[in-house]
Amino acid sequence: MSKPVKVGICGLGTVGSGTFNVLTRNAQAINARAQGELEITVVGARRDNPACDLGDTRVTRDIFEVARDPEVDVLVELIGGTTVARDLVTEALTNGKHVVTANKALIAEFGNELFALAEQNNVVIRYEAAVAGGIPIIKALREGLAGNRIEWLAGIINGTGNFILSEMREKGRDFADVLAEAQALGYAEADPTFDVEGIDAAHKLVILASLAFGMPLQFSSVYAEGITRLTTQDVEYAEELGYRIKHLGVAKQSDEGVELRVHPTLIPESRLLANVNGVKNAVLVEGDAVGPTLYYGAGAGAEPTASAVVADIVDLARELGAGQQCRVPALGFATDALQDLPIVPMERVSTAWYLRMEAEDKPGVLSQIASIFSDQGISIEALIQKAPAAGETRVPLILLTNKAVQGNVDRAVASIEGLDTISGEVTRIRVEALDG
Amino acid sequence: MSKPVKVGICGLGTVGSGTFNVLTRNAQAINARAQGELEITVVGARRDNPACDLGDTRVTRDIFEVARDPEVDVLVELIGGTTVARDLVTEALTNGKHVVTANKALIAEFGNELFALAEQNNVVIRYEAAVAGGIPIIKALREGLAGNRIEWLAGIINGTGNFILSEMREKGRDFADVLAEAQALGYAEADPTFDVEGIDAAHKLVILASLAFGMPLQFSSVYAEGITRLTTQDVEYAEELGYRIKHLGVAKQSDEGVELRVHPTLIPESRLLANVNGVKNAVLVEGDAVGPTLYYGAGAGAEPTASAVVADIVDLARELGAGQQCRVPALGFATDALQDLPIVPMERVSTAWYLRMEAEDKPGVLSQIASIFSDQGISIEALIQKAPAAGETRVPLILLTNKAVQGNVDRAVASIEGLDTISGEVTRIRVEALDG
Ligand SMILES: NC(=O)c1ccc[n+]([C@@H]2O[C@H](COP(=O)([O-])OP(=O)(O)OC[C@H]3O[C@@H](n4cnc5c(N)ncnc54)[C@H](OP(=O)(O)O)[C@@H]3O)[C@@H](O)[C@H]2O)c1
Ligand SMILES: NC(=O)c1ccc[n+]([C@@H]2O[C@H](COP(=O)([O-])OP(=O)(O)OC[C@H]3O[C@@H](n4cnc5c(N)ncnc54)[C@H](OP(=O)(O)O)[C@@H]3O)[C@@H](O)[C@H]2O)c1
Repeated sequence: MSKPVKVGICGLGTVGSGTFNVLTRNAQAINARAQGELEITVVGARRDNPACDLGDTRVTRDIFEVARDPEVDVLVELIGGTTVARDLVTEALTNGKHVVTANKALIAEFGNELFALAEQNNVVIRYEAAVAGGIPIIKALREGLAGNRIEWLAGIINGTGNFILSEMREKGRDFADVLAEAQALGYAEADPTFDVEGIDAAHKLVILASLAFGMPLQFSSVYAEGITRLTTQDVEYAEELGYRIKHLGVAKQSDEGVELRVHPTLIPESRLLANVNGVKNAVLVEGDAVGPTLYYGAGAGAEPTASAVVADIVDLARELGAGQQCRVPALGFATDALQDLPIVPMERVSTAWYLRMEAEDKPGVLSQIASIFSDQGISIEALIQKAPAAGETRVPLILLTNKAVQGNVDRAVASIEGLDTISGEVTRIRVEALDG
Repeated sequence: MSKPVKVGICGLGTVGSGTFNVLTRNAQAINARAQGELEITVVGARRDNPACDLGDTRVTRDIFEVARDPEVDVLVELIGGTTVARDLVTEALTNGKHVVTANKALIAEFGNELFALAEQNNVVIRYEAAVAGGIPIIKALREGLAGNRIEWLAGIINGTGNFILSEMREKGRDFADVLAEAQALGYAEADPTFDVEGIDAAHKLVILASLAFGMPLQFSSVYAEGITRLTTQDVEYAEELGYRIKHLGVAKQSDEGVELRVHPTLIPESRLLANVNGVKNAVLVEGDAVGPTLYYGAGAGAEPTASAVVADIVDLARELGAGQQCRVPALGFATDALQDLPIVPMERVSTAWYLRMEAEDKPGVLSQIASIFSDQGISIEALIQKAPAAGETRVPLILLTNKAVQGNVDRAVASIEGLDTISGEVTRIRVEALDG
């Protein structure tokens, strides 16, 4: 009834070998689901990978051969990066091949151009694996929640970062110490900057936001703050206040435009997101009709990521096998309906705040600080003042504010840092209630 | 480019009015996502519903007129029940209309016949709203996890039941008391049997299991145990042992076949599922490639349920507007690939157990009990023995066992109930670690 769909896999690293293995091991169920045969026609890899036995699958050492192979219907890009991968995907699309990719950097930075090229060539690009690994969050936003106006979403979308924060909280370990372990365990990249500086999360967030709000990808507009400056002290004080610190990507639509931000965040400990630990990912989405929904699972790893890659291939195969087109738009909205929504500048973004400072332990300090906040229209929600350590004249002072725009907090903090009763910088971390 | 897709809504109750309102309010975004126009051509309702303003939408008082209306492409069945609804859907399919429904009873009990009829008529039935309301769990199983062999799933899939259990735990209230409130709040059906006896959950579970394992629907094979006999005492003892009691639907694939069961279950308090409270639903799915994933959200209510109905309509419209077929099979697997898997009889189902009994407070009782368990090959994992209340000679004895098949537990319990040192019946509740 339907013709085999021919797949070419480029890149045989972690995800490439996982994809090959899952497609092979679960071939029977996958073909039954796809209503036809999925065939791995060729693998493009510079070298073999002991993690998978290619059997008599055809292999080429030149990945671009896959993009030119007249037999291939779907090219699966799993080489990573934004240089060669961009050329490879461009060539595949130009040659009329559909593309499946796990490459968040490529989609976040070059998605607009690639989606347009795909449309011109009457093919599609699918990228479920690019965000939150095996969790079908792209599909949820693009299809499952299609009836909703999405109001906001917030996600733990970098597994390495979440592993580090979970260990810091559970075992009181230092950031640097846990990062070294994450690297040893293979969670973190060799260059961990992408993980811990929030760049990887920013790549994923911008994709989620475009799907949620119907706007072209605007990677350069994401505010990204990493977790490198978090201390176990802050993790503990947060706990005392009933919060956990998570590294969140937050996208929110308001009258002013769209907020796109990645930063450490205090969230109430009773929230499900606060209880997502280790390398797991989760995304909370608030829709006007459905209310809050949450999606949880493995955000990385060979087979979890392969699960998403294969789902994309099955989606394509269900249509292609019957000679049809895939009709789901790349960002969930018809291209001509995408809107360049304004991005809210960070100084106008309003959240509650956690502030920690070192203050002289003497009368009048609190009232000085309170009056500075009051001048900026910021009200204080909770306060912890610690007893001074033996021989110390300074005490840690921890405040939770009500919602305040960052500009006002900046000004208050500048004034506080100018007080001679305060030493050093004020530590600030945003707080999100995540309750709609 | 694409022609309008014409929708006829039958039933204007909670979900019908919610669907009308969401389609109307979010028309612009929905059309942009569907890449074409969605038009509510006619509403079939015996009477108007003040919850929605139909404007100049055409209305018929005879729902069967919608099934015969030559203009209608998609009939949305929201009347409920399995008699008239079955006739209505049958007529719509026979007349070449696609069907979207929220009716779990109809799908669970008559899905096999209706899917076959749809296939004969080259149309499809979509039922995302039938399980877990607004959570796109059908889509996740049918598409998002298509690369996996699903090993098991476990869900809180009845909001009323979860509301009752949450209130019992949080406020120490009685079952009957909370049920009355749930009815007053409109959560429970007027006849609450479906909710509290596990029938509604059984309807949903059988649908999830068929999607997960690729088998025809077998509603009559589901074991369903309700929550009516749970006491606040058991809720508290469970808590003492580090567990929460949830009403779960569990489907599991093993060498022996498929387990299909709905029952109260102790789950470790640290699990996300243990922290899903109130009327919310959540489903945990274990796939061989992806590992555990979890989906959380509103399991009922006008607009959450409408969110799922509209998502189904958008899915259809994306294809139909371009004159294509919807190629995703009704149960995720090609019809000829569905397999009638054997159902594991309950006496052979193995789980850990919570057992509570009233025992004489005298020496030797524990060793009698221990020897009975040992005879059945059951080992004891934890035990709580309470001090006797003033003037009482009997004490509550609470045991957690390791995994044991129900047949052995039945025999052990029968022996224990026969001891003259034990009074009354032994309370038993299954325990699931939910850790893969
Ligand atoms: N790992 C995860 O858990 C995960 C999760 C989600 C998404 N992703 C994304 O998936 C993609 C692949 O990640 P990965 O973890 O599988 O990376 P990886 O293990 O480093 O594998 C990359 C593969 O691509 C090959 N490759 C790289 N550059 C090439 C080039 N210029 N020409 C030919 N082959 C080239 C590598 O070959 P050599 O071995 O010869 O260098 C290797 O086989 C990335 O976009 C990543 O962001 C990964
Ligand atoms: N409520 C939820 O949260 C929820 C969630 C998930 C799924 N569902 C499913 O959605 C479906 C609808 O539920 P609902 O809560 O919306 O029910 P509902 O509020 O009772 O509404 C049912 C509607 O169907 C009409 N109707 C019933 N029988 C009819 C008949 N024989 N002929 C013509 N009209 C008939 C009713 O008309 P009258 O008012 O004239 O009786 C009413 O408009 C059910 O299958 C239910 O299981 C509901």
